[in-house]
Amino acid sequence: MRWTMDYQQILENIYQAIQPYAKKGKQADYIPALAKVNPDQFGMCIHTIYGEIYSIEQADTRFSIQSISKVFALAMCLSLKGDELWKRVGKEPSGTAFNSLIQLEVEKGIPRNPFINAGAIVMSDILLSMLKSPEEDFLAFVRAVSGNDTIQYNDEVAVSEREKGYLNAAIANLLKYHGTIENDIERVLRFYFLMCSIEMSCRELSLAFLAFANHRKKFNYAGVTLTTSQVKRMNAIMQTCGFYDEAGEFSYLVGLPGKSGVGGGIVAIYPLQYSVAVWSPRLNSKGNSVMGIKALELFTTETKESIF
Amino acid sequence: MRWTMDYQQILENIYQAIQPYAKKGKQADYIPALAKVNPDQFGMCIHTIYGEIYSIEQADTRFSIQSISKVFALAMCLSLKGDELWKRVGKEPSGTAFNSLIQLEVEKGIPRNPFINAGAIVMSDILLSMLKSPEEDFLAFVRAVSGNDTIQYNDEVAVSEREKGYLNAAIANLLKYHGTIENDIERVLRFYFLMCSIEMSCRELSLAFLAFANHRKKFNYAGVTLTTSQVKRMNAIMQTCGFYDEAGEFSYLVGLPGKSGVGGGIVAIYPLQYSVAVWSPRLNSKGNSVMGIKALELFTTETKESIF
Amino acid sequence: MRWTMDYQQILENIYQAIQPYAKKGKQADYIPALAKVNPDQFGMCIHTIYGEIYSIEQADTRFSIQSISKVFALAMCLSLKGDELWKRVGKEPSGTAFNSLIQLEVEKGIPRNPFINAGAIVMSDILLSMLKSPEEDFLAFVRAVSGNDTIQYNDEVAVSEREKGYLNAAIANLLKYHGTIENDIERVLRFYFLMCSIEMSCRELSLAFLAFANHRKKFNYAGVTLTTSQVKRMNAIMQTCGFYDEAGEFSYLVGLPGKSGVGGGIVAIYPLQYSVAVWSPRLNSKGNSVMGIKALELFTTETKESIF
Amino acid sequence: MRWTMDYQQILENIYQAIQPYAKKGKQADYIPALAKVNPDQFGMCIHTIYGEIYSIEQADTRFSIQSISKVFALAMCLSLKGDELWKRVGKEPSGTAFNSLIQLEVEKGIPRNPFINAGAIVMSDILLSMLKSPEEDFLAFVRAVSGNDTIQYNDEVAVSEREKGYLNAAIANLLKYHGTIENDIERVLRFYFLMCSIEMSCRELSLAFLAFANHRKKFNYAGVTLTTSQVKRMNAIMQTCGFYDEAGEFSYLVGLPGKSGVGGGIVAIYPLQYSVAVWSPRLNSKGNSVMGIKALELFTTETKESIF
Repeated sequence: MRWTMDYQQILENIYQAIQPYAKKGKQADYIPALAKVNPDQFGMCIHTIYGEIYSIEQADTRFSIQSISKVFALAMCLSLKGDELWKRVGKEPSGTAFNSLIQLEVEKGIPRNPFINAGAIVMSDILLSMLKSPEEDFLAFVRAVSGNDTIQYNDEVAVSEREKGYLNAAIANLLKYHGTIENDIERVLRFYFLMCSIEMSCRELSLAFLAFANHRKKFNYAGVTLTTSQVKRMNAIMQTCGFYDEAGEFSYLVGLPGKSGVGGGIVAIYPLQYSVAVWSPRLNSKGNSVMGIKALELFTTETKESIF
Repeated sequence: MRWTMDYQQILENIYQAIQPYAKKGKQADYIPALAKVNPDQFGMCIHTIYGEIYSIEQADTRFSIQSISKVFALAMCLSLKGDELWKRVGKEPSGTAFNSLIQLEVEKGIPRNPFINAGAIVMSDILLSMLKSPEEDFLAFVRAVSGNDTIQYNDEVAVSEREKGYLNAAIANLLKYHGTIENDIERVLRFYFLMCSIEMSCRELSLAFLAFANHRKKFNYAGVTLTTSQVKRMNAIMQTCGFYDEAGEFSYLVGLPGKSGVGGGIVAIYPLQYSVAVWSPRLNSKGNSVMGIKALELFTTETKESIF
Repeated sequence: MRWTMDYQQILENIYQAIQPYAKKGKQADYIPALAKVNPDQFGMCIHTIYGEIYSIEQADTRFSIQSISKVFALAMCLSLKGDELWKRVGKEPSGTAFNSLIQLEVEKGIPRNPFINAGAIVMSDILLSMLKSPEEDFLAFVRAVSGNDTIQYNDEVAVSEREKGYLNAAIANLLKYHGTIENDIERVLRFYFLMCSIEMSCRELSLAFLAFANHRKKFNYAGVTLTTSQVKRMNAIMQTCGFYDEAGEFSYLVGLPGKSGVGGGIVAIYPLQYSVAVWSPRLNSKGNSVMGIKALELFTTETKESIF
Repeated sequence: MRWTMDYQQILENIYQAIQPYAKKGKQADYIPALAKVNPDQFGMCIHTIYGEIYSIEQADTRFSIQSISKVFALAMCLSLKGDELWKRVGKEPSGTAFNSLIQLEVEKGIPRNPFINAGAIVMSDILLSMLKSPEEDFLAFVRAVSGNDTIQYNDEVAVSEREKGYLNAAIANLLKYHGTIENDIERVLRFYFLMCSIEMSCRELSLAFLAFANHRKKFNYAGVTLTTSQVKRMNAIMQTCGFYDEAGEFSYLVGLPGKSGVGGGIVAIYPLQYSVAVWSPRLNSKGNSVMGIKALELFTTETKESIF
């Protein structure tokens, strides 16, 4: 089935329709680098599996992808360890705030899924153990899957996140206490924050996630290989765990697998159809982009298509 | 896209392939009526939206649908209250065992989703408040959506569930304490258990759930009407919340929205393609049918099709 | 050592000193019988082990002793079961609100101590199992230890507490689910609420608790016998668990073992010196009498004597 | 009232009576310095307020006082801040394991009491903020109250505790996240572990705690001053919070305020009578010395005296 809708027109309609939300919410401001971003920006880009590209507004402005990087980390970990990975981290939705230590303590250091911070810190530890040059390898993979060699870490962001990262440091220490991370805590945290600091535009993110949407195409980027079944299962995890404790709400409103970041970015995919990235810095109380979620809700409503 | 696979052959292959699991797990035995069921039974049935039907083994044996009834209750509640419903119950995955009182106490009596017991007890309360003859109306709806007037409650099961239903009674009392149910506790519990006691076969369940799979067809059964968008959103909730604290695992392995019951039944749907019901009484530690989950995993693997 | 202070004068000074607190707090109003009590009452009475009695204001007005009855229930249970009792209930402070279900669920139905509601419900179950006429026997014991045959249950209070007792019913059902109560839930709850409904004055309570203060005297009332060691250990439990999640605060401010009730009564003892009862209906946010706690704090400050 | 019992004989009887427990339990072994202690040691010493001293066995062998140091820290903090201290830390028993992060997260970073690790870490922060030379000042106070200038920190123990102190580091990071500690996390942790590393014998500890038992004597040591009321209130906190989640059990069995440490030491006091220190490295599952608790239980049973 080939899409015949006028996506460009739909994007432009959506942009008008979401204007009433333009000043709702508040950008992340726990570190200076995020606080100083102009909050009144919006970008959106779609890549279809047929090669079409549609975009509006600041689709080419790079922003801090933050937790969206967890999807790339999961791809690398699955590629390296296969189903062995699930001995270190679960795949159930967390049901509580994304940074809760309670679940971790109750469940003896096994994070509920790879997309909560605890899970991503475990993935950071795994990559450190298995790769010779984890920083280079991770960036190489992200560049390869995005088809863009200019993508970079933002060291200033990474360093200042570490400085203020008390809660993640608490999580890493608790994981170490339970014996679920192997490497030096500081090393694990620094790599975790470095991955989060990657900067990409909607256009770049959307293209990168096309690799997950188009699972009939071989997934092989900079040595990171996944089977079709693995890609589909990653999509399943994005569906159930991609939006902290708003996963059910996003699934209900938008109906697509996806992942959000505290920088205001959201990526979602419609398997075998398209990937879509949207960005706007103002967040709701759950830490997800207000305009981003609204735009995606309107998009699947307008196109009358979701995975359900 | 029309299916061209030989579903009948696939079902038969699956039945052979799952034989090693035939004695794994233990049926529910907390009430006599469930304990006396022969645990070594298996049935499976598929209805496609094109009218084809495929089945194997005991696809026509009726069993206690138990929590699968919560999907029917949700359809009625959504039809009656629309989005107002979500003031009484959430739509986030629970992240803990299906019967946990902790979440309820922490979140002041608002159940996390309609498919945990607390959520279904709230739905029982809503139906009691809004319907003149809730018992008759609920059965009428299930019969209509199944196209089968012989479907019945099993009063013996309902009564003996109530007698042993201490945990659900604790939940109902806690909800009443928090002011989130309006009717008499005993009345609410009895109707809740009655809904759970409905008996259906795989063939009947599969046909009933075709109404959720085929959301292009108007949903209107015995006065219960849902829009296309509402049906799709129900499917989203089945995806994220349909399998207690194994929702992520099911999503990962099977990749379809669905709902399980402690009687050993599971129903899943592939939107705009088919619905499938499977039944086998032996359960895993999470309360889901061992052979049922295995059969569905093999089915989506074999057909190479899931929503992801 | 014989007391030589002028207790009567101290009581009168205290009464003046606490007047600024006279309108602070709010009486319990969850049932009509408690809501209709005049909140602006205050009584206090002291019995020394030498037979002296001091009292002020409404020391002879009876009120609902509520949770203070748990001390009498514990005395009976310890007399009947000895240290076997501690297999059914713990003796650690609860550290959370007195009615929390969370601890109970986490610890599989063993209440943390006999003075939280769950613990007292287990004691109600034990008395029902071990006594032929539990209602008569309990009242007989309270009358004997108080030396007063006119003490009565208040059936109206007991019945209306049961009607609104959703949280306690939730607790009882959860205990039954975990197999930690033997008798019919309704029977257990009714006896629990009946014990709580006993009405006594400060003078009567103070005299009754003299039996715990004066542990050199044989404890033997209506067949309820305790050794000196058992009485002292009951006092220890009152110290650590007698004031819900304000046990530490009371211990810090007052420094005596005691027990409070939601009717506004507090009893405390100074072992081998005196027992003291105080009553005033207005409660603080933890459910303890505002003027009662203040009066006791001033009393131990003024007399410069506490167990520490 | 002057003691007339033959304490020396009682101590010797107790030592015989506890021999059956000599091999029960396991010493702390999470750091080498504790693991290498000979576990089969026992010492006990009593100081009365009249100046008598009784001791048996290794009463002069120094050991790591660990959490007993929290009592000294509390004395300093109360002296420096008075009741302002209670804005930073609570005084309720914790009701859960001494190292639980759950309570801290639920209660937004306010530790339940000064004797759980979180509370002591907050006290470490307070001392760092208020003192010019916290390390010197703390040691000076402990030496003064013990009347012994040879008492020392054990730097090796402090350093190796920090290295393995993942759980305490998690706690400190969580406190910092909630804004409840002011100083650098590493500095706070190092001072916390240094205080814990102090080594004292039963004789030295017993003498030091006499200052808490004898609250009629002015408390003024190396500039640390407390009123009688403050000393009594510290005793109250030892009673309700001194033994992690075994506080109720200790209160029930022994009936004295006290504090234990993971090095196997326990100190208890009988206000206006005596202080007693006991030491034996093997611990029960709650982290308290097996022979130590047994010896104290026998001691208060034998002397027929407890605060209750």
